[in-house]
Amino acid sequence: MLTLYHLWLCPFSRKVRVFLNEKAIEYNMIVEKTWERREEFLVMNPAGQVPVLVDSYQNSIADSNAICEFIEEMFPDLPLIPGHPKQKAEVRRLTAWFDNKFNTEVTKNLVGEKIMKKFLGLGQPSSKAMRAGQMNIHYHLDYVGWLYERRGWLAGDRLSMADIAAASHFSCVDYLGAVPWDEHVLAKEWYGKIKSRPSFRAILSDSIPGHPPPNYYADLDF
Amino acid sequence: MLTLYHLWLCPFSRKVRVFLNEKAIEYNMIVEKTWERREEFLVMNPAGQVPVLVDSYQNSIADSNAICEFIEEMFPDLPLIPGHPKQKAEVRRLTAWFDNKFNTEVTKNLVGEKIMKKFLGLGQPSSKAMRAGQMNIHYHLDYVGWLYERRGWLAGDRLSMADIAAASHFSCVDYLGAVPWDEHVLAKEWYGKIKSRPSFRAILSDSIPGHPPPNYYADLDF
Repeated sequence: MLTLYHLWLCPFSRKVRVFLNEKAIEYNMIVEKTWERREEFLVMNPAGQVPVLVDSYQNSIADSNAICEFIEEMFPDLPLIPGHPKQKAEVRRLTAWFDNKFNTEVTKNLVGEKIMKKFLGLGQPSSKAMRAGQMNIHYHLDYVGWLYERRGWLAGDRLSMADIAAASHFSCVDYLGAVPWDEHVLAKEWYGKIKSRPSFRAILSDSIPGHPPPNYYADLDF
Repeated sequence: MLTLYHLWLCPFSRKVRVFLNEKAIEYNMIVEKTWERREEFLVMNPAGQVPVLVDSYQNSIADSNAICEFIEEMFPDLPLIPGHPKQKAEVRRLTAWFDNKFNTEVTKNLVGEKIMKKFLGLGQPSSKAMRAGQMNIHYHLDYVGWLYERRGWLAGDRLSMADIAAASHFSCVDYLGAVPWDEHVLAKEWYGKIKSRPSFRAILSDSIPGHPPPNYYADLDF
């Protein structure tokens, strides 16, 4: 049995969870408080970050991209990096878009400030950062809508790692009630499609003590 | 013929250049001043970043990871993400280490402050950021030495994308004369091995007008 070390509102951990769920691979989850810098965990991943995937022989794989590519190679059925190499490149480009660009411009500014700062005891959220995050998210929602309208899914005509990466980030921000869905109808339609997938159900039932999500968070009709 | 849009001191562009060189694939290079946000370039990569690889049919691929994975799939000879899936995961983990962690902790603090700020007209380098970069680099040099001593190369017993990513970042910092090689003998030995490869020669002959590298930059005996 596989074990995934994760954090609840970590979009990179969520990406791996949905990736595994889509492939119907069973796994256990362990919350790793990365800020405690536990020695046994640092042996598994010297970078000290989640997600880390461990198999029953205690082999560990770190970095969400390395984990997803590994799962795709080991379990090629129901491909999530599908198609010919050019098509796969588009999946990887958009995955990087959300894991790098969206993460820097939106996730860190909102989830990082509002949640992670609290756990790390780093003081009050920066209102400047939060404003930047709230402003930047519109551009990304427009881009999602633009891609969705032309393709059906973000990287093409079927669900891929790109949708999973994007939805993982959006779901973390949505947990704070900070995604202006009603101003972006197409992006909302795309997110509705993801929300209705069984692979996403566990993500929507996450609840962090002291920080419940807004009421509509798990609703398919949001 | 392939064309690579790049910037001289961009470690992500360098990674793709060395990757292509190792596979003996011919390509043209075009410098893209990303800060000008040229419209034709934004069509190729809406993220506005280099590297972007374009083929003779004007198909473009953006994001250095997507490009390297694409090249590996199209030209599987002389693999640079070699081995079984677990081994490939280690190559990808370490590539992400340098492209994310090292980039944030070192490259941005040194190359970003000293070179990119100038081109972008963003004012004087922050001495606080530069001090952080100079302090952080030791830890990474130690890690490189530790891996090299046990494995011969960073991710295993042969050259891989991980070495290329690492060397691309180190070479950009080395261009500023800011890598304390003499305090890290093992890392220096590893970098010497990379420097002596024909694939790396072009990187070592780069020279930015008004910003020449230190004398030892291209020397194999440094």
